[in-house]
Amino acid sequence: MTPAEEEARERLAECGRALGRLGLIGLGGHVSLRIRDSDLILITPGGGLDKTRMRPSDLATIDASGKRLAGPYPPPIETPIHTVVHAARPELASVAHLHTHWATIFSILEEPLEIVLLPGACLGGPLPTFDEPHLVTTPERGEALSQALGRAAGVLMRWHGVTVVGSTLEEMFNRAVSLEDNARLLWEARAIGKPLPLDVAQAAKDTANPMVAERTLNYYVNLERPLDQQRHTGRSAERR
Amino acid sequence: MTPAEEEARERLAECGRALGRLGLIGLGGHVSLRIRDSDLILITPGGGLDKTRMRPSDLATIDASGKRLAGPYPPPIETPIHTVVHAARPELASVAHLHTHWATIFSILEEPLEIVLLPGACLGGPLPTFDEPHLVTTPERGEALSQALGRAAGVLMRWHGVTVVGSTLEEMFNRAVSLEDNARLLWEARAIGKPLPLDVAQAAKDTANPMVAERTLNYYVNLERPLDQQRHTGRSAERR
Amino acid sequence: MTPAEEEARERLAECGRALGRLGLIGLGGHVSLRIRDSDLILITPGGGLDKTRMRPSDLATIDASGKRLAGPYPPPIETPIHTVVHAARPELASVAHLHTHWATIFSILEEPLEIVLLPGACLGGPLPTFDEPHLVTTPERGEALSQALGRAAGVLMRWHGVTVVGSTLEEMFNRAVSLEDNARLLWEARAIGKPLPLDVAQAAKDTANPMVAERTLNYYVNLERPLDQQRHTGRSAERR
Amino acid sequence: MTPAEEEARERLAECGRALGRLGLIGLGGHVSLRIRDSDLILITPGGGLDKTRMRPSDLATIDASGKRLAGPYPPPIETPIHTVVHAARPELASVAHLHTHWATIFSILEEPLEIVLLPGACLGGPLPTFDEPHLVTTPERGEALSQALGRAAGVLMRWHGVTVVGSTLEEMFNRAVSLEDNARLLWEARAIGKPLPLDVAQAAKDTANPMVAERTLNYYVNLERPLDQQRHTGRSAERR
Repeated sequence: MTPAEEEARERLAECGRALGRLGLIGLGGHVSLRIRDSDLILITPGGGLDKTRMRPSDLATIDASGKRLAGPYPPPIETPIHTVVHAARPELASVAHLHTHWATIFSILEEPLEIVLLPGACLGGPLPTFDEPHLVTTPERGEALSQALGRAAGVLMRWHGVTVVGSTLEEMFNRAVSLEDNARLLWEARAIGKPLPLDVAQAAKDTANPMVAERTLNYYVNLERPLDQQRHTGRSAERR
Repeated sequence: MTPAEEEARERLAECGRALGRLGLIGLGGHVSLRIRDSDLILITPGGGLDKTRMRPSDLATIDASGKRLAGPYPPPIETPIHTVVHAARPELASVAHLHTHWATIFSILEEPLEIVLLPGACLGGPLPTFDEPHLVTTPERGEALSQALGRAAGVLMRWHGVTVVGSTLEEMFNRAVSLEDNARLLWEARAIGKPLPLDVAQAAKDTANPMVAERTLNYYVNLERPLDQQRHTGRSAERR
Repeated sequence: MTPAEEEARERLAECGRALGRLGLIGLGGHVSLRIRDSDLILITPGGGLDKTRMRPSDLATIDASGKRLAGPYPPPIETPIHTVVHAARPELASVAHLHTHWATIFSILEEPLEIVLLPGACLGGPLPTFDEPHLVTTPERGEALSQALGRAAGVLMRWHGVTVVGSTLEEMFNRAVSLEDNARLLWEARAIGKPLPLDVAQAAKDTANPMVAERTLNYYVNLERPLDQQRHTGRSAERR
Repeated sequence: MTPAEEEARERLAECGRALGRLGLIGLGGHVSLRIRDSDLILITPGGGLDKTRMRPSDLATIDASGKRLAGPYPPPIETPIHTVVHAARPELASVAHLHTHWATIFSILEEPLEIVLLPGACLGGPLPTFDEPHLVTTPERGEALSQALGRAAGVLMRWHGVTVVGSTLEEMFNRAVSLEDNARLLWEARAIGKPLPLDVAQAAKDTANPMVAERTLNYYVNLERPLDQQRHTGRSAERR
């Protein structure tokens, strides 16, 4: 195993456990990470494994077509989500298919999932939708999903869940967490009133950057780290 | 004890603990499983026992009339739910009476519990209702409930809860979990808008099958299994 | 200490811990239990103690006027709730002042807290309200609360919480739990529709009895009991 | 380190852990405490550290300009919230910037966050709002926030969160907890009806005082204290 794959396995497992503790990946979600300087992709297995205890050695290494090259478990049935999107957007490092509770509400409504929180500005605006009542189990369906996603930060999958992407693992994770926080707050605000519109471009200047994304993933990983291994990352008043 | 009963006890206790951790069985729920190649039924006891720590030896073995043949605790007062439904539908392996929170909301409303999530397609469509303001404590009430259930995957019991059935333990469990997920999302969508109709028959092609059901139960049991006993089941991209 | 007081301390501490785990007592709640064959009352202390770890020795013994006779902590500032209600209704064994989340919503609305669940029938019907914007810190306020309560199972305290009573500790506990379950479901149903009316008198025949109440408290205490001390109580198909 | 700083570090860490367990501080919140008889301020670090395990030695000591004088981590990027508000209101001991879920809903709505619970009376009335779609990362933005806050108990920060202040650490903490409880109940009541107006000035006579505030913080700290270190504080029937 190359050092790049070894490092990618550590980071993806760590990220997967964090998504598991947050309840964002659950039974049917999976996340992939491109191994740096290669066409290989690491992916979390499906099959009903407990994601909150995912280990680096549990992950599958697949090639661009989805064929398993390493790992004890086969890739999930919806692997075409990952292979097709990674091929269409080589600038991406990570793709996640998640069954995030609050965002999924908006997948079954016409109303757009508007951005109403400063951190939500990392999404750029309301996500597009993928409208087929299907699991994405074939390259053809992966292609349709990829078309629906376009250049966006993610796509709502009607009656199903979301797919979120990032140019880094941290960006994907930060978008997934911010999407869910934003969706919950938007739902609650709409249940009793009309949310005040947010200037998303303005907010993005403060919140849509790599240091914010790095801090978000670091925070959720810190929750499982022993006290003497806590890491401090991101921006501070001193580095302003 | 026959090997068939021993195996059934292991599986039902495992399933009961999983329903307990999910909060679906709680104080007043109970689940039964027909012992294969027999007329005997295993049932989880009532009486206020903690279901999250249910052991195989805690279960009662009853005959078709509800008479206890083995087990340290008497069967629950609503045992007629199980005996009557098992008699009316011999193709069933498992019957569960549950106080599932989100589905019960729809038991006290006229509006149907529409299917709005791909996994919910395993329910076939909105469940029928049982409209009597009673616990099901007699064969006569069991008969009325069974009539209300008909050939459906389950029945909403007004002001009370649900009964869900399956031709396997896995199918019953997958239906119970999917019903609750679907009911929560439907409630939330309806609180702020009008859900987009799902083509349930189309969705069922992807999600209403034994491998999906097997994976669902396996996932929730994996959560209590030690890491070296995690099991991978269900469909994968390789078995597509 | 008399055997009656010793037994009452064990039971009240057990019940208080169960209310604590359920989130029904929290920071500001307290529960009292009359010691059998006496005018003495046991009461859980306030003062910010952790109720989920309440011990028999933490409780205060007070006389009918609220004077402390035993126990390491003073009685809570709202002790008049207990002394006045116990004096007005000698048939009661237990009085609880609770900050139950869901029921408190209805304390700040005109709409009645209608009974919509079979177990909620133990409350008899919608509870009356106590309309003063005050803590109940004096005998005069206790008297006003007692008048508002009348012969009911409990009273909603506007902008504040509830007081629930019972002729046994089990009846009080079962009413508190059923009130909260019923309030949550009613709130959710009303948020999206109009609940179907329940025939409360009919439902009460099945659910408003001492064995149901005994089973409810036993269940929540079983959750903290070691496996070999689980107790089975209440009705069963065999005792039907 | 002076005894005053040592004591302040113990108390702020304890308070920060309690806010962490309550989910009020999360990823992006921070709290400051003025060291008594000095111009120095202690502040919890940002950078994605786990707040539920915050230690006294993790805190930063800063001067009135925000410059770090001690502590292993830099102060958070939004430190100007603290430095500017402490300078503008020297009577304050503590300032907290929190991402409290329920109160933040009202930050994105026109409707005021009305007081509907007796303990909420410690807030004095609906909080003012800070309307800029920005993190508060500069003294200029801190100034604008401070202007919006004025003499109030706190300020809703639109699309973002809240800032809550107190003349003691206990007052700040009690206000933060009461704000969140009040916001949740108000939201729920408004979702199904029109809340009954509360006489806030009348309620404040019972609930807006130092002993109530002391008891609130003590309660949430007791939850982490061993049983033999539980502390009883606040008012009781005996001290009435």
